[in-house]
Amino acid sequence: MLEVISFINNNKENYINELKDFLRIPSISTLPKHKNDINKAAEFVAGKLTSAGISRVNIFKTEGHPIVYGEWLGAPGKPVVLIYGHYDVQPVDPIEKWNSPPFEPVIKDGKIFARGATDDKGQLYVHIKSVEAYFKTRGSLPLNVKFLIEGEEETGSENLEKFIINNTDLLKCDSVLISDTDLYTAGVPTLTYGLRGLVYMEVEVTGPFQDLHSGTFGGSVANPINVLADLISRLHDKNGKITIPHFYSNVKKLTKKEKTNFRLLKFSEKNFAKEAGVNELYGEKGFSTLEHIWVRPTLDCNGICGGFTGKGAKTIIPSVATAKISMRLVPDQDPRKIAREFTKHIKRNAPKSVKVVVKELHSAYPIMTSLNDKAAVAASLAMEKAFGKKTVYIRDGGSVPIVTVFAKKLKVSPVLMGFGLNSENLHSPNEHFDLNHFQLGIISSALFLDTYSI
Amino acid sequence: MLEVISFINNNKENYINELKDFLRIPSISTLPKHKNDINKAAEFVAGKLTSAGISRVNIFKTEGHPIVYGEWLGAPGKPVVLIYGHYDVQPVDPIEKWNSPPFEPVIKDGKIFARGATDDKGQLYVHIKSVEAYFKTRGSLPLNVKFLIEGEEETGSENLEKFIINNTDLLKCDSVLISDTDLYTAGVPTLTYGLRGLVYMEVEVTGPFQDLHSGTFGGSVANPINVLADLISRLHDKNGKITIPHFYSNVKKLTKKEKTNFRLLKFSEKNFAKEAGVNELYGEKGFSTLEHIWVRPTLDCNGICGGFTGKGAKTIIPSVATAKISMRLVPDQDPRKIAREFTKHIKRNAPKSVKVVVKELHSAYPIMTSLNDKAAVAASLAMEKAFGKKTVYIRDGGSVPIVTVFAKKLKVSPVLMGFGLNSENLHSPNEHFDLNHFQLGIISSALFLDTYSI
Repeated sequence: MLEVISFINNNKENYINELKDFLRIPSISTLPKHKNDINKAAEFVAGKLTSAGISRVNIFKTEGHPIVYGEWLGAPGKPVVLIYGHYDVQPVDPIEKWNSPPFEPVIKDGKIFARGATDDKGQLYVHIKSVEAYFKTRGSLPLNVKFLIEGEEETGSENLEKFIINNTDLLKCDSVLISDTDLYTAGVPTLTYGLRGLVYMEVEVTGPFQDLHSGTFGGSVANPINVLADLISRLHDKNGKITIPHFYSNVKKLTKKEKTNFRLLKFSEKNFAKEAGVNELYGEKGFSTLEHIWVRPTLDCNGICGGFTGKGAKTIIPSVATAKISMRLVPDQDPRKIAREFTKHIKRNAPKSVKVVVKELHSAYPIMTSLNDKAAVAASLAMEKAFGKKTVYIRDGGSVPIVTVFAKKLKVSPVLMGFGLNSENLHSPNEHFDLNHFQLGIISSALFLDTYSI
Repeated sequence: MLEVISFINNNKENYINELKDFLRIPSISTLPKHKNDINKAAEFVAGKLTSAGISRVNIFKTEGHPIVYGEWLGAPGKPVVLIYGHYDVQPVDPIEKWNSPPFEPVIKDGKIFARGATDDKGQLYVHIKSVEAYFKTRGSLPLNVKFLIEGEEETGSENLEKFIINNTDLLKCDSVLISDTDLYTAGVPTLTYGLRGLVYMEVEVTGPFQDLHSGTFGGSVANPINVLADLISRLHDKNGKITIPHFYSNVKKLTKKEKTNFRLLKFSEKNFAKEAGVNELYGEKGFSTLEHIWVRPTLDCNGICGGFTGKGAKTIIPSVATAKISMRLVPDQDPRKIAREFTKHIKRNAPKSVKVVVKELHSAYPIMTSLNDKAAVAASLAMEKAFGKKTVYIRDGGSVPIVTVFAKKLKVSPVLMGFGLNSENLHSPNEHFDLNHFQLGIISSALFLDTYSI
C-alpha cells in the first residue's frame, strides 16, 4: 500500500488543479439552459475515468441527463464495489451573495470555493483519483470496481432509478460506496448509517381569474395568498408537530444503542446554531436537536410566491399564489403515502372559493444501512487509518434518494463514507470543500479498496 | 340654462377631438422618462382652462410634478367651488394586452379607449368644458370656480398635500367637486359618499443569515416562510374577522338609512362574482357583499415572496420571506393607530428565533361625506336632471387619499360626482370611457354650477 499512498501524497497539487477544471463546468441540472454544461461534465468524468485506468467507460443517454458508467473487473473472485456519485450541481441563486463567481474556483484558507465543491464533485473525484493511484503504481486494483456517476441527483435521480431497474445485471455488486455525506466534524472520520427521505410538493391556489383592485373587491373574494398562508400555517400545531393525519404512524423510535452513540458525539447546540446563523434553535417539542435533524420528520416551505413583489406598493388581490413545501421523512415513513395524506389534508382545509392544485415534484425513501456489513466495517477501518482517529457513526437529515434504490434493487447495504461538512454551504452561496478532507478522502478510498479486498 | 346646454350638445364632436389630444400625451407620473410628457399635460390643461375663459391660470412647480391652478372669482356673494382632478395616468404594462396602443385613442362602440380615458383625463375634462359653455354663451359663471389639477395622483399626491397645507387661503372654498369615482352602473346618476382608507405594510421575516439545506437543518431552525404564513394566517379568525387588537374599535356601523339605500341598489352578487372572475364570493361572516366592500375594513396580502420560486425543486430553508399586507379602513379608523396595532400584533406573534421588520409604506384616511351638504344636494339634482333618472348613493371600497386632505385642511365636505365605471379597466389594459357618460358629465357639471349658485 505504501506506493499507492505516497503516489497520492505526491499528486496533491495535480488533484486540486483537476478538481478546479471539474468545478468550472456549470453543470446545473435543474436549469435547461445548462444542458450543454451537463454534457460537458459527463464527458469530463468519462475522460477522467478512462485516463485513470478504468477499462470500459460508457456515457449512457437517458431521457434526462446522461449517466457515466465505467468498470474494471480484473480481479476475479474478489468483491465488486459500485462507486456512486453525481456530477450535477445546485443552482447558484442568490448570486449576489457569492464572494467569488460560483464557477471560478478560488482557494482560501485551505478550502476550495465553488458550486459543487463539496456536493458532489469534490467528493466523487476522490474515488477516481484513488483508483488512478493503484493503476499508476501497481497497474491493477485489489478488487473489482464499477463507477456509476449521474447528472440528476439535484433533481431527483429519476432517470438513474430507471437505469438501475433496467440494468441490475450490469450493476450487480457486493457493495455500493457513496461519498455524498458529511463528516460529523472536521477531521473526524465518520460513517453515516441513516438518511431521511423526502417528499417535495407544490401547492397552487387560484382565486380570481386576474389580479383585482383591492379597493373594489377587497373583503368580498378569497385572497389566494391569505388562503395559502392559512393552509401552510395549519400544517403545524403549536408544539411544532405536523398535523397531517397518520403522518407519524410509521416513525421508528430511537434505539438505546443509538441514544448512547448520540451522547458520545458531544453535540453542541450552540455551535450548531452558529452554523445555521440563528440566535436560537427551534424545533418540535420533546426532542433534542440531534433528534430534530436525524430522527424526526419535518415540514418546510422551500419557496413561496404570489402577487406584487416589486418595490413599493400595489393594491391588488392576486390571482394566484404558489408554495413549494417539502417534508423530510424518517424510517419507516412511505413518501407515496405521505404525499397522498398531504394532498388530502390541503384540499380538505381549502375554502371552496379558491381552486387548489397539489403536485408531487419528487420523493425519496428514508433509509438505515447496516454497520455490521463487511464493506461498512472496511470503510470504518480505512477512514480510521487515513484520519488517525476513531470513526464515529451518525445519521444525516438529508436525503440521497438513490441510496434506497441501490439497497432495494441491487440488494446491498450501501456504505455512506462522506468527506463533506454541513458547514460547507452546500445548496447555498459560497459552497466550499476542505482540501485536507479532499486529500484524506482519496487516501480513505484507496485504503478501503485494499481493506475490503482482503 | 337652455343656451348653455344646447351649446354643449352642439359641441359633442369637438369635445371628443379635444379629449383625444389630451389622451395622446403619455403623462405617466411614476416613470421618470415621462417627465416631459407630464409637463406637456400640465400645459395642455392650463391652455384649455385659459381658452375656456378662466381668468387667472398658473402652473405651480413642486418638488415633483406641476400643479395647475386656475380661478374665476367674478361672482361675488356666490359660493366658491374648487374642482379637483389629475392629469397623470397609470403605467401601461402589460402592454401586450392592449388591443390598440394606449396613447392612440380609438373609439369603438361609443367608448374611447386610451390610458387615462376614465382615470382621470376624461372625467376632469368634463368640468373645463362645462365652464367654457357658460363663458361662450353668457360670458360669465353663475358662481366662483377654482381649478386644482395635479400630476401625482397615481403616485400618492404627496406634493399636492403640501401645496394644500401651504395655500389654504388661495384654495379657500365652500365645496370641493371631484369626478374620479364611478357610476353605480351605466346610465345611473350616482353620488359616492364614502371612501375606504388604507394602510399598506410590509413584513420581512429573517431566519438564518443565508439559505440553509433543508436536510441538514430541517426541523431545528424556524423557517421564515412558515413563520410568515403563520403570522398572516393569524390575522384573521375563522369567521373572516381581523384579529388585530382594537382593529374594529372605531368602525362605524351602517345606519338604517344606508341599509335602506343599499337595498334600493338591487346589488347582484352573481354579477359581481362574474366581474371578479370567481365562482364563489367569500367574506366576513354576518355581512353582505356590499358591506364587505364598502362598510367593513379588510386585510389583504398584496404580495408574498421567499425562498426558491423557480421551476422544479430546491430543498432549502430560506433566509428571508417578505409580504406586502394592506388594510382597507372605514370611518372612523385611524391609519396611524392601525399601523401601530398591526406592527405590535405581528411582533408579539413572531417567535424569538426570527427577526421581524414591519414597515409602513403608505396610508390614507377613510372618509364619509355629507349628503345633506348644499353642494351634495345640488350635485344630486344636477345629475338627476342630466341623466333623467333618480340619483343613487353609494360608497366605494377604494381610497382617494387627497379627499381627506381637502376635508381636513379646507374644512369642506367634498362632493364625489364621478362618471366612470369600475368595468372601464382603470389601472388595467384597454382602459376606456363611455362617451355618453362623458357628454352627460359635461351637462351634469353645468347644471351643478347653476343649481349650486342659487
